[in-house]
Amino acid sequence: MGRKKMSGAPASGNGILNRRIFLEGVLAASATGAGISAAAAEPLAIDPWMRKPGTGFEGYGQPSRFESKVVRFMPPPLNPATQGVGAARTPLHLLDGIITPSGLHFERSHSGIPDIDPDRHRLVIHGLVNRPLVFTLEALHRYPMTSRIAFIECGGNSQALNAPKPAPLPLVAIHGLLGCQEWTGVKLSTLLDEAGVDPAARWVIAEGADSAAMSRSIPLSKAMDDVLVCLYQNGERVRPSNGYPLRLLVPGFEGNMNVKWLRRLKLTATPAHTKDETSKYTILLKDEKSWQFVFPMEVKSLITRPSPGLTLKGPGFYEISGLAWSGNGSIRQVDVSADGGKSWAPAAIQGPVLPKAPVRFRAPWQWNGGPAVLQSRATDDTGMVQPTREQFANERGLRGVYHYNAIASWAINEKGEASNVYA
Amino acid sequence: MGRKKMSGAPASGNGILNRRIFLEGVLAASATGAGISAAAAEPLAIDPWMRKPGTGFEGYGQPSRFESKVVRFMPPPLNPATQGVGAARTPLHLLDGIITPSGLHFERSHSGIPDIDPDRHRLVIHGLVNRPLVFTLEALHRYPMTSRIAFIECGGNSQALNAPKPAPLPLVAIHGLLGCQEWTGVKLSTLLDEAGVDPAARWVIAEGADSAAMSRSIPLSKAMDDVLVCLYQNGERVRPSNGYPLRLLVPGFEGNMNVKWLRRLKLTATPAHTKDETSKYTILLKDEKSWQFVFPMEVKSLITRPSPGLTLKGPGFYEISGLAWSGNGSIRQVDVSADGGKSWAPAAIQGPVLPKAPVRFRAPWQWNGGPAVLQSRATDDTGMVQPTREQFANERGLRGVYHYNAIASWAINEKGEASNVYA
Repeated sequence: MGRKKMSGAPASGNGILNRRIFLEGVLAASATGAGISAAAAEPLAIDPWMRKPGTGFEGYGQPSRFESKVVRFMPPPLNPATQGVGAARTPLHLLDGIITPSGLHFERSHSGIPDIDPDRHRLVIHGLVNRPLVFTLEALHRYPMTSRIAFIECGGNSQALNAPKPAPLPLVAIHGLLGCQEWTGVKLSTLLDEAGVDPAARWVIAEGADSAAMSRSIPLSKAMDDVLVCLYQNGERVRPSNGYPLRLLVPGFEGNMNVKWLRRLKLTATPAHTKDETSKYTILLKDEKSWQFVFPMEVKSLITRPSPGLTLKGPGFYEISGLAWSGNGSIRQVDVSADGGKSWAPAAIQGPVLPKAPVRFRAPWQWNGGPAVLQSRATDDTGMVQPTREQFANERGLRGVYHYNAIASWAINEKGEASNVYA
Repeated sequence: MGRKKMSGAPASGNGILNRRIFLEGVLAASATGAGISAAAAEPLAIDPWMRKPGTGFEGYGQPSRFESKVVRFMPPPLNPATQGVGAARTPLHLLDGIITPSGLHFERSHSGIPDIDPDRHRLVIHGLVNRPLVFTLEALHRYPMTSRIAFIECGGNSQALNAPKPAPLPLVAIHGLLGCQEWTGVKLSTLLDEAGVDPAARWVIAEGADSAAMSRSIPLSKAMDDVLVCLYQNGERVRPSNGYPLRLLVPGFEGNMNVKWLRRLKLTATPAHTKDETSKYTILLKDEKSWQFVFPMEVKSLITRPSPGLTLKGPGFYEISGLAWSGNGSIRQVDVSADGGKSWAPAAIQGPVLPKAPVRFRAPWQWNGGPAVLQSRATDDTGMVQPTREQFANERGLRGVYHYNAIASWAINEKGEASNVYA
């Protein structure tokens, strides 16, 4: 298959290559078995879809029928009476880039998705304010808006990795409670300024219009900083499963603080200790104590390709690709390892690098056909480094359910199959 | 409605405010008539959707049923036998941010949308190369990928403004051939390096697998620079109407060079002069000459709100919001005017500011209830400034159909209605 040139030494053990490697010929050679060929270039085949005009336009387009398996991952409901209680997860292993398609953004709901009439929906701001206010959606549209690209991660994402033995789960089941959109809305600080914040106020209790009235307490300092009352996601109005017609974006903070179907904001002197921040989203530690109100999702990363189900087709070149994010800032560095953390090499980080948004990282890898353990390790611009599972367990124990952010590992076996392991 | 404070002088005529204005109280006062009220804050109403559990999860989510009018704009086909010949346009006036939802990204097709089986689809690279290559999609997935946020604008966008009199058209009909996605794919230069480019090659002829075999000639220098062979848009596989399973992204260049349903790339010494770059996409000038191969879409901007159909509800505060983009680089500045270009003030530009990607701009405006003409004027980082319609006409005439990028104007009448005017 022609020339093979490869400049630069391997960057770390077990085949991780320098990210600026010059690849000419290497790839074609690797990919031969997987569908690249020189022989059949001409004459070009005329495929059946070229022999007649295609279909007409649609008002609202959909993915190809050949992609019908690219859907959110939904375990069957434990109880048929509690539909919509649980989560549907983003198939990150089948996606690329940083933006999540809105139709695949994970959803975590406590009482299903309400069917809200936007003309009847109201947002109330009350409590410790100078003048309580009620907003229609039309009134909110009069305010200055802001857009930003940001991730939302459920506080319970990756909790399967607390299990004492690694479960044979695919990526989506372990890590699929993560999404990223371009969110657009009114700054919450603008609306709070309108209502006039009482000096005694320290917290904002945000409540959803689902039948669970899902509620969280948000520090006023965060509310006045970068919280948005969102009307749009990825350009269009927020989807029902993501909070139509109105949700909070609380950048970097755990998912369910980004209250969906937002209907009220009550300013208070103390947190409310709602059921949704006591019975849930409180972190049990190893010494029988708990952490409550742990808000930012800590620095984390994830290799999306290769991953379970995406079997390697023979030795050769592959790109290791994944996502890294931090609720405390922006990503400064991502390192990858193919030998379970014995050696590391820096991955290329794809811009734009934005605060509280994921970056896509990529690293070239020459798989020799033998066993490998792939890992990624992110560092954010506060200097926080993603811990090993052992470090994480030593600090917090493994009963916490929430905020699991340790380095994750995929073992590759000699058949090219990936699986969840601890390493 | 309480206090009214407004710091800073007006920034330009007819109510454009300083973009760093302090807005306390002004907004609530403005918005009173449009649905903000203090009286009804408590007790909170319990809406019917809170009285029972919501619906369950969906594998692939959709917009709310209350947003069913947010669809692409499609004139009825001129001939029922030519379905899929023409365009469906993005309703930019109903969107915000810079990302276009994939289901609403404009489509321009010359022979409908082919229903391509990805397992049977092939990409051929041939012509002036050392070794012709045929790629399956699986083989392409072995290559390193790149993601970037970029606009695609049809070369014929805004051509309605060439008409001698301003037509009473909505924004979507005039300007809706513009979209922006996060695109992910393999750099074309990587694939061309694999095939080995013959030193005599200067052009790449790109052909689609639609029944029109839509084809364009792309300079090799561009192909080796930043062109992507895209597999993903906004995170998921490219949609059928946008080229499934494979399309080119030719950043900044006119839309139809971003060949959809890509099936071959032929390297040649000269351009092919295909039907799609001679009978179309060639610009007739006022002196009977023509410009062929005018590739980058020039600096341009557009106010999306207010715009026709989005009637202002009484005097008061509004945000002027829109998009600005340049096929030659990134946006450096956007100015707005409320008096038809007599005076201008700088708008706030929302980051990230990326090359060949749109920015969202925003400017505060106090509408006094009288007539106004709203305009925006973009400047890119090459120093190019969007021309007035008069300047544009003086240079090129108004018979060109393609690459219309002059300043656009919305008149606001005393009822708050917006309409397309020349000013």
